[in-house]
Amino acid sequence: MSLGEFELIKRFFAPLTEASSDASVVLGVGDDCAILNVPDQHQLVLSIDTLVEGTHFLPDTPAEHLASRLFGAAMSDLAAMGATPAWLTLGLTLPESDINWLQSFSTKLGQLCREYQINLIGGDTTKGPLALTAQVHGFVPTGKALRRTGAQVDDLICVSGYLGDSRGGLEGLLNGFPDQSAAEYLHKRFYAPSPQIELGQSLLNKASSAIDISDGLLSDLAHILNSSGNLGARLQLEAIPLSPQLVQSFGEEKARQWALTGGEDFELCFTLPPQALAQLAQLPAPVAVIGKVTEDTDLQLFLRGELCEISGSGYDHFRNSGQVSE
Amino acid sequence: MSLGEFELIKRFFAPLTEASSDASVVLGVGDDCAILNVPDQHQLVLSIDTLVEGTHFLPDTPAEHLASRLFGAAMSDLAAMGATPAWLTLGLTLPESDINWLQSFSTKLGQLCREYQINLIGGDTTKGPLALTAQVHGFVPTGKALRRTGAQVDDLICVSGYLGDSRGGLEGLLNGFPDQSAAEYLHKRFYAPSPQIELGQSLLNKASSAIDISDGLLSDLAHILNSSGNLGARLQLEAIPLSPQLVQSFGEEKARQWALTGGEDFELCFTLPPQALAQLAQLPAPVAVIGKVTEDTDLQLFLRGELCEISGSGYDHFRNSGQVSE
Repeated sequence: MSLGEFELIKRFFAPLTEASSDASVVLGVGDDCAILNVPDQHQLVLSIDTLVEGTHFLPDTPAEHLASRLFGAAMSDLAAMGATPAWLTLGLTLPESDINWLQSFSTKLGQLCREYQINLIGGDTTKGPLALTAQVHGFVPTGKALRRTGAQVDDLICVSGYLGDSRGGLEGLLNGFPDQSAAEYLHKRFYAPSPQIELGQSLLNKASSAIDISDGLLSDLAHILNSSGNLGARLQLEAIPLSPQLVQSFGEEKARQWALTGGEDFELCFTLPPQALAQLAQLPAPVAVIGKVTEDTDLQLFLRGELCEISGSGYDHFRNSGQVSE
Repeated sequence: MSLGEFELIKRFFAPLTEASSDASVVLGVGDDCAILNVPDQHQLVLSIDTLVEGTHFLPDTPAEHLASRLFGAAMSDLAAMGATPAWLTLGLTLPESDINWLQSFSTKLGQLCREYQINLIGGDTTKGPLALTAQVHGFVPTGKALRRTGAQVDDLICVSGYLGDSRGGLEGLLNGFPDQSAAEYLHKRFYAPSPQIELGQSLLNKASSAIDISDGLLSDLAHILNSSGNLGARLQLEAIPLSPQLVQSFGEEKARQWALTGGEDFELCFTLPPQALAQLAQLPAPVAVIGKVTEDTDLQLFLRGELCEISGSGYDHFRNSGQVSE
């Protein structure tokens, strides 16, 4: 979008750079590169995410929903490392310079940047099929970042928030919400995830490993177990937190399947040495213990004491095998 | 591209991360975020660029050309700051997981990463209309980054390399090359720009301002002059370096127009205090002095002693006005 690119940046995005007086930002938007300082005794962590129309969101999704979805998904990666948010860069590909779209997108993004104290420092706007790329950058004390590696046998497996809601929100958007009273909540859980930044930071020096739930609990937990030396786990399915709205709308069975495999909840899954159990109550967000890490490499799911079989879409009741068949 | 995304990253892109033993990279691909160290006494500079099929390149452009074009354009922003390249992140949106495309793209990108000693540390691959986003990161000694601000009255205006070639290459791709002997050279100048990293670094503590030529010399020089306190300039058009291949193929008049406004040459334009003239010979790339900075805010173009008028597409001969009419 060479036509109007300078004005577009100046009008909609440069103000987001100036929103904070951040000592780490020497220069934001306005030169060939941004110029930045990483605080002493800290490392930089960063992650890049792209959302594409038709792949990650439906055509005609309102711009403010795209802003919150992009922001939440990207920031969730910082949360998983226990990082303090610092800077955001944005690659926006738009079919046209739609002033209303830009106003609405940048207003929501600006709100979120202020809320999470992250500073927009650069970007590129281009013309083409609608796609949005965000790179987030944060700081962690040197050597302290939470990683997927590090889970130990007998560690507790914990998750934040309710799982499966995002998949429920998508289902409602595609096929209608059976229960209108839950629609607003699930809609919001899909479009406006709440990255667990504060929780992630509070887990530094506590959790032995962490990941954000983007692919689905089973898949993301498998990343932790594989990265930590091919460990296994036993999960108690009834301990996985499900929102009343999700259960009410789609039933407990479907809710639990979505909690396991739905993905994009952008909550945290982490492991905690058993002696740290008492510290759970002091964490800044509700957290549930859903199982523990085991030495053998199987992932075993139990529901009311019965071993369940894992299938592609989640698990099957009353079968006698615990192999991950993904 | 959730199907096969892990394999795709592992097969094609993870090897690029391991290519170097870079102390600044604690962790590249493989967790929620990369973990990185910025050296003491250095600042981080970064820039994000997106290329979209149909907007920035023609459909069916070979993957290795896209790799070199994306890489060159992005790295050129680091060159303009005088930075040492450090890390690259990649957002790839592809219509399908085409193994040949990925092989060819990642092979070329890997070559360039090794040549310029930059490390691929993260990325996101998604399904959708072809678009490529690169964010480049580099280091500069604290407070020393070259910026657009800082040009002074009487500073020499310099450019590297030949200008207009990229526009000539595009013209040939669209309408055929009139001169086949020049086709290969101009084609390469369009698809495989050579970011002036070494030159940029050598200008630290020498140049008073710098920018890379992406929008076109007149437009990019105007960024320097405006950022440096609304200064002006006098340019000698015959001093602007034109390649023999460009002049031979399209004539001197068109070549000069494209040198002024064609853009995407990814050479450097910089200003130098007049007393630094003697240092030009020691720079690691050919550089031409094309004019000087003036106090009044006009941009005046002279060709063989005659003042020319600037028009939207470059300049007109033999008219008597020096206003930027962009």
